[in-house]
Amino acid sequence: MLQPFDDTYFMKKALLEAEEAYEKGEIPVGAIVVANNTIIARSHNLTELLNDVTAHAEMQVITSAANHIGGKYLTDCTLYVTLEPCQMCAGALYWSQISKIVFGAEDTQRGYRVMGTKLHPKTKVVSGVLAEDASLLLKRFFIERRNLN
Amino acid sequence: MLQPFDDTYFMKKALLEAEEAYEKGEIPVGAIVVANNTIIARSHNLTELLNDVTAHAEMQVITSAANHIGGKYLTDCTLYVTLEPCQMCAGALYWSQISKIVFGAEDTQRGYRVMGTKLHPKTKVVSGVLAEDASLLLKRFFIERRNLN
Repeated sequence: MLQPFDDTYFMKKALLEAEEAYEKGEIPVGAIVVANNTIIARSHNLTELLNDVTAHAEMQVITSAANHIGGKYLTDCTLYVTLEPCQMCAGALYWSQISKIVFGAEDTQRGYRVMGTKLHPKTKVVSGVLAEDASLLLKRFFIERRNLN
Repeated sequence: MLQPFDDTYFMKKALLEAEEAYEKGEIPVGAIVVANNTIIARSHNLTELLNDVTAHAEMQVITSAANHIGGKYLTDCTLYVTLEPCQMCAGALYWSQISKIVFGAEDTQRGYRVMGTKLHPKTKVVSGVLAEDASLLLKRFFIERRNLN
């Protein structure tokens, strides 16, 4: 059977969010939350615009998805995020008991895996989905920033 | 010289916030952020009322303090929190580059130390300030909850 709603499909939507962050001069990371093949939350990194280190894409969609559901646990949800979550976001995902996390590019410096952050035992993880696209966008951003300064 | 503004003084203010959380039926944790001996942010756990796992006291005061300062880094600030921060909050504190963290009761289950979360190398930590008061309030809360169910 044809399956139009696969991980690649939804990661493309998260990448569109990352591109919006890029346009705003934010480190380009985007995230969406999906439940029953429906996007229930979408956002992108807003740390510069909001002057707030907690305004990562993941934090915003966790709050937004919980609002949508009317409950704080995301036990039947999947997060798609273009970059591997950091300690903070992985810690929030731990509390949310989210079912599944799909991320694109890995973060070998500050990603939750190298930092040793624990996810909830019920959370499944898929990595590397459209990693190249997410990574290229980040590289492009940092090269442009360097040239500006 | 008399020093009225010591860690105990400010932890008492954080405990008042924890008591407010208690009154609202929230797990009683309170936090404040201090800069130049002035409280620039105060809040308490609101995860139940807001239906949001990210609404820990620390997360709220990090955002609020950054708003007050007009910049996202809390490099000249001290956080007072009645309970040891979790992975998420320690991860947010890492990004904030906060100067100092003072916490009350330790959390041997989900505290950042047992979970292995990394703070910023510049962040100093003081633990155990009014730990007994913070711990008693938490115990009282959980005993009452158990009796209600």
